[in-house]
Amino acid sequence: MSAQEKDRVARAALSRLMEPQDSVGLALVQVAGAVDALGIATGELGIGPAMEQEISAALRDGGGPATWAGLQDSLRRWAPRVADLAPDRDLETLRRLGGRLIIPGDDLWPGQLADLGLQEPLCLWWRGLEQELPSAGRAIALVGSRDSTSYGASVTGDFAFGLAQRGFSVVSGGAYGIDAHAHRGALNGGVAGLPTIAVMAGGVDRFYPSGNEDLLRAVAAQGAVISEVPPGSAPTRYRFLQRNRLIAALASVTVVVEARWRSGALNTAHHAESIGRVVAAVPGSIHSANSAGCHRLFRDGGAVCVTDVGEIAELAGAIGEFGSQDGDHNGNKERNGNKKQGAAVHDGLSLEDLILLDALPLRSTSSVEKLTVVAGLGPEAVRAGLGRLGLLGLAVSERGAWKRGKNA
Amino acid sequence: MSAQEKDRVARAALSRLMEPQDSVGLALVQVAGAVDALGIATGELGIGPAMEQEISAALRDGGGPATWAGLQDSLRRWAPRVADLAPDRDLETLRRLGGRLIIPGDDLWPGQLADLGLQEPLCLWWRGLEQELPSAGRAIALVGSRDSTSYGASVTGDFAFGLAQRGFSVVSGGAYGIDAHAHRGALNGGVAGLPTIAVMAGGVDRFYPSGNEDLLRAVAAQGAVISEVPPGSAPTRYRFLQRNRLIAALASVTVVVEARWRSGALNTAHHAESIGRVVAAVPGSIHSANSAGCHRLFRDGGAVCVTDVGEIAELAGAIGEFGSQDGDHNGNKERNGNKKQGAAVHDGLSLEDLILLDALPLRSTSSVEKLTVVAGLGPEAVRAGLGRLGLLGLAVSERGAWKRGKNA
Repeated sequence: MSAQEKDRVARAALSRLMEPQDSVGLALVQVAGAVDALGIATGELGIGPAMEQEISAALRDGGGPATWAGLQDSLRRWAPRVADLAPDRDLETLRRLGGRLIIPGDDLWPGQLADLGLQEPLCLWWRGLEQELPSAGRAIALVGSRDSTSYGASVTGDFAFGLAQRGFSVVSGGAYGIDAHAHRGALNGGVAGLPTIAVMAGGVDRFYPSGNEDLLRAVAAQGAVISEVPPGSAPTRYRFLQRNRLIAALASVTVVVEARWRSGALNTAHHAESIGRVVAAVPGSIHSANSAGCHRLFRDGGAVCVTDVGEIAELAGAIGEFGSQDGDHNGNKERNGNKKQGAAVHDGLSLEDLILLDALPLRSTSSVEKLTVVAGLGPEAVRAGLGRLGLLGLAVSERGAWKRGKNA
Repeated sequence: MSAQEKDRVARAALSRLMEPQDSVGLALVQVAGAVDALGIATGELGIGPAMEQEISAALRDGGGPATWAGLQDSLRRWAPRVADLAPDRDLETLRRLGGRLIIPGDDLWPGQLADLGLQEPLCLWWRGLEQELPSAGRAIALVGSRDSTSYGASVTGDFAFGLAQRGFSVVSGGAYGIDAHAHRGALNGGVAGLPTIAVMAGGVDRFYPSGNEDLLRAVAAQGAVISEVPPGSAPTRYRFLQRNRLIAALASVTVVVEARWRSGALNTAHHAESIGRVVAAVPGSIHSANSAGCHRLFRDGGAVCVTDVGEIAELAGAIGEFGSQDGDHNGNKERNGNKKQGAAVHDGLSLEDLILLDALPLRSTSSVEKLTVVAGLGPEAVRAGLGRLGLLGLAVSERGAWKRGKNA
């Protein structure tokens, strides 16, 4: 078995052992590699003080807990699931369903997930055609309420259809309401490639909720149904919230079509903003509770107001023309942008982003914490700015720390 | 007759001689004073090379034409109207209608108009109760399409009613649609003071359009109907556009309720933005052409999204708490803000505004042109920033040039 295949089996097992966004687990994998991390997590291997320090540093740089008491708590958390591990069986289940597991380093791995830093998923369980997933610049997330109005349904359907017609992949969840209308519209509009991608909170072996079973089957047949949790996993509330970061990271633009004042869609928008993706929202009547969340995003979140497909494509295009952000996991692929484009981009930067760019070291890397000091900006502003600079190829991250990118 | 009364009669005459925003005429008044300016404009007095240079400088600093060929063109423009001048008759007309003419320096003059710089009106012809016009912080402009939808009518009525109930004056034009709904709502909600102010493009002796005659009569009875052009003046297209700057300058916040992609309301919003007032807009269905202009403002103009009266009051409050901007014409009234408040404001400034503040001289004054060089910002950005700093008492203008304000 090749190292990459050993890595795949280990990540399959780890994805069952650890909940999504388990910071300590992800730091352990980052430091020890997936195969050794599995050995350590299952208690076969131990760790020395040097590795413990490295994990601690990875956690600190990756925005994890400030103090870390060691691996013991995590080992206790993982222990009850060790007996259930059967990665080969899980991989076989996916194969039987016409699917596969992809991991960082695979050609099919979407490089834009590296923008999640330490929170990049261990792997993706994937049902659908074996066809390259779109770069961020070619993917648009359409998200919103389950209890959408006829206005939301009509807008979502139109947008999804139009985006698919223009060759964009639509990214959404698998729920009723806006999610379902997004997939339906994209499937109708799809001309080539993957018209639509459903990112599930539970395992992809089950199409949940059952009322969307036929729709999700169609999505798997023409597009992709993916999840970071292994087959058989229930779609818990926690996993729904973690899943939202994947929707946000896969797309260059997250469009909230309809959302109440408190809505899961706003959580997705927040994830998108925190990694420097564009957040957009659709305006509606001020008398509609289902648009209150969108209007809130205009006020509080600085979301862009979009009213047609052309405006969305334009937002994606501003990013897409410099190619997708390829993380280091993807073998430092050459970016589409070049020096000349970089200089042009540079001119359009905000003052804050220029300050941040100046603060980025050329060769060594700098942590977010250090950048807040050097640039004199808050941590939120630094993270958002790094996301923007990253998408333009002006900044690049290495193991959670940042330096200037090739276009800088 | 006192100097102030001589000034009043001269300005009454000048307001008939010159169209609104006649830069050369306004610069002439700024340099020579209204009484001598009238003498010069009517050909009784001549000007020497020193005054010509001063006018040229006032034009340059006030954003007028870059090159100025001298007074001859303007004298030719004004000449045909000289024979018609009868300021005493015009003043008497207003008195008979229960009105008056106010000029800079009067206690009743709204100090916030000084933010228009060279474009401050010469005078205001005013029908209505002799009661102090509101400061910018207590006035909200509600503007929008003539052909408003039922949605626009309902939103405008609710907003105007609620604003008047909270003691804000509503400012709008005298047209059908949003303007009329704004006045009606405010008159219904008014508890004290001036609930609503109609700023007319033509003379206030006629209530135009005739379908709004009863409504405008009610506005004059409980609020105010004002105009910078003298009685008998027709509401020309040009005067409508110039009138919009007065609506924008009187209020701290301009709310566009409904507007098509191209609409006069967007012109008002543009005026508001250019003098650093807050521009807000109401979202609506993306399928309504009457909301397309509002959505355009969210995208292009950085308008704030407002969905209820509380949000509008909050926007006004952020400015209102530091008192209205009192121009120099108003005798350098003491501002409500003090050093301590100024420091707090200072902390909340954007990077650009901080840079601009740093570029402002403490004692001498600096032209907009010079500030663009010192601050490294474009003239648009400098003007907008000066407006914001002005409202916070951090910048103050003297004859078109700027220095630090009392709160800086």
